[in-house]
Amino acid sequence: MSLLVVGSIVFDTIKTPFGKREEILGGSASYFSLSAFFFLPPKIVGVVGSDFPQSFINIFREKGIDTEGIKIEEGKTFRWHGSYGKNPNVRKTLKTELNVFANFAPELPESYRDSKFVFLANIQPDLQRDVMAQIKSPEIIAMDTMNHWIKGCPEKVISLLEDVNLMFLNDEEAYLLTGKRNFFESSEKILEMGPQFVILKKGEHGVIVFSKDGEIFPLPAYPLKIVKDPTGAGDSFAGAFMGYIAKEEKTDWETIKKATVWGTILASFTVEEFGVEKLLEIKRKDLEERFEKFKKIVSF
Amino acid sequence: MSLLVVGSIVFDTIKTPFGKREEILGGSASYFSLSAFFFLPPKIVGVVGSDFPQSFINIFREKGIDTEGIKIEEGKTFRWHGSYGKNPNVRKTLKTELNVFANFAPELPESYRDSKFVFLANIQPDLQRDVMAQIKSPEIIAMDTMNHWIKGCPEKVISLLEDVNLMFLNDEEAYLLTGKRNFFESSEKILEMGPQFVILKKGEHGVIVFSKDGEIFPLPAYPLKIVKDPTGAGDSFAGAFMGYIAKEEKTDWETIKKATVWGTILASFTVEEFGVEKLLEIKRKDLEERFEKFKKIVSF
Repeated sequence: MSLLVVGSIVFDTIKTPFGKREEILGGSASYFSLSAFFFLPPKIVGVVGSDFPQSFINIFREKGIDTEGIKIEEGKTFRWHGSYGKNPNVRKTLKTELNVFANFAPELPESYRDSKFVFLANIQPDLQRDVMAQIKSPEIIAMDTMNHWIKGCPEKVISLLEDVNLMFLNDEEAYLLTGKRNFFESSEKILEMGPQFVILKKGEHGVIVFSKDGEIFPLPAYPLKIVKDPTGAGDSFAGAFMGYIAKEEKTDWETIKKATVWGTILASFTVEEFGVEKLLEIKRKDLEERFEKFKKIVSF
Repeated sequence: MSLLVVGSIVFDTIKTPFGKREEILGGSASYFSLSAFFFLPPKIVGVVGSDFPQSFINIFREKGIDTEGIKIEEGKTFRWHGSYGKNPNVRKTLKTELNVFANFAPELPESYRDSKFVFLANIQPDLQRDVMAQIKSPEIIAMDTMNHWIKGCPEKVISLLEDVNLMFLNDEEAYLLTGKRNFFESSEKILEMGPQFVILKKGEHGVIVFSKDGEIFPLPAYPLKIVKDPTGAGDSFAGAFMGYIAKEEKTDWETIKKATVWGTILASFTVEEFGVEKLLEIKRKDLEERFEKFKKIVSF
């Protein structure tokens, strides 16, 4: 089975109470891919500037992640500066330089066009639509978005929802999109817009997955004493989730539940260190151990 | 085994988007007892005014709840008026008339003094201390409190913590008490103050239990589409929790986890209707069915 992700590839500069990192590898496509890889290495669609080091490209390649779809444009790579205070749930964006990402026009290599599982990370909705249009016969399309697009062009987000199978969003975005604070009401409204599954992310409070069939799966976050850098938790979650269902080639309820747990596990590793540091360090065995430990913790 | 609760017995007037009720039976001791009863009917210590109807006393008595410790004082019963908007997590207190509760001086009947499991619901810390002093040889003492006491007399709350086994509190109270937003850090600080277990309640996000031995049990809330009246959820949770461990006569980790689940189940029933309405309607069978359903929902 084949998995494709379109999203951002960014130089992140991040400050948290645990330290600072400058111009490290970040962006939704990076976190997604380096998490999905444990299940099924994806194909990346993205854009970087001529300042993007080959060593970063190699990080993906060494893991079997397909980088043919990463376009190198003359100019600078997308840069983001952010900080977190004592409360890791509150992110402060200090600077955003879109650079080459400002004119991103995703074009899929021929070898990408028969991808079956697709993840449209948070980018401008027209671009998400463009990517969808280039895939010949997708089986499962998932999307993410952000408050910026929900506020700026809600009709485009809603139109996309008609054509996707899974929607990943956080509690604030769900409220913005539906006007409903209650998770049941907001997810019901979103399910009515099209997708079969809504994955509602609640940060430290975990996640709730809702299906069109009326199934529901609430899962707490994996308990972590220290969160060094929350950046990328959502994209790592999505990466592991999509990697798992693409590998299994199934979206039945039991598979969706397991995918949610794997998403939680990968997100928990991600936030233990800055950027993708921990994702590059862990092995399949670490994942499996944490999965079993989590299962033991939450069962009764 | 014997279970004692000291707390408030109140006439509640409650308005929510789902309706209004006037002068219905409320208060921490009421919710606690009517939930604990499914496991072990407790002995209540409390005070009401001469306007308190016999029919309300009979609600307890018919369930085998011991009301000998409910003192009837000349005057009016404690009255509370509150409302909730669309967000059930935000409570607005419109009026509080302490009435006879203002001079509450809990005095335990002789037959109460050999109680083994004790729940000190949210009342003034000196009164919680007075009750503790009247119990001959308690095995497990649990306490609740509220922001009012943590702000007003933190040293009294902290002093009590040295002598209790379990502490029930919500996330806001944990932050107030410890200055720590991170649940691990706040619970660690509280565990250092004395108790063996901290039960950190997070409303719609569920609960996390921490033990001094380093165990942790995060549990999502039982998924509910409609919350008609959130009043009493925390006290129902504590009632079922304490009722279960008192019946089992154990506080090993597996028992604590099960107690947490039963607390969650009873809290979920409570908020489905106003006041204690649902607690009076459900049967043991309904509880067991929901327990099994919950187990199926959250397992993977």
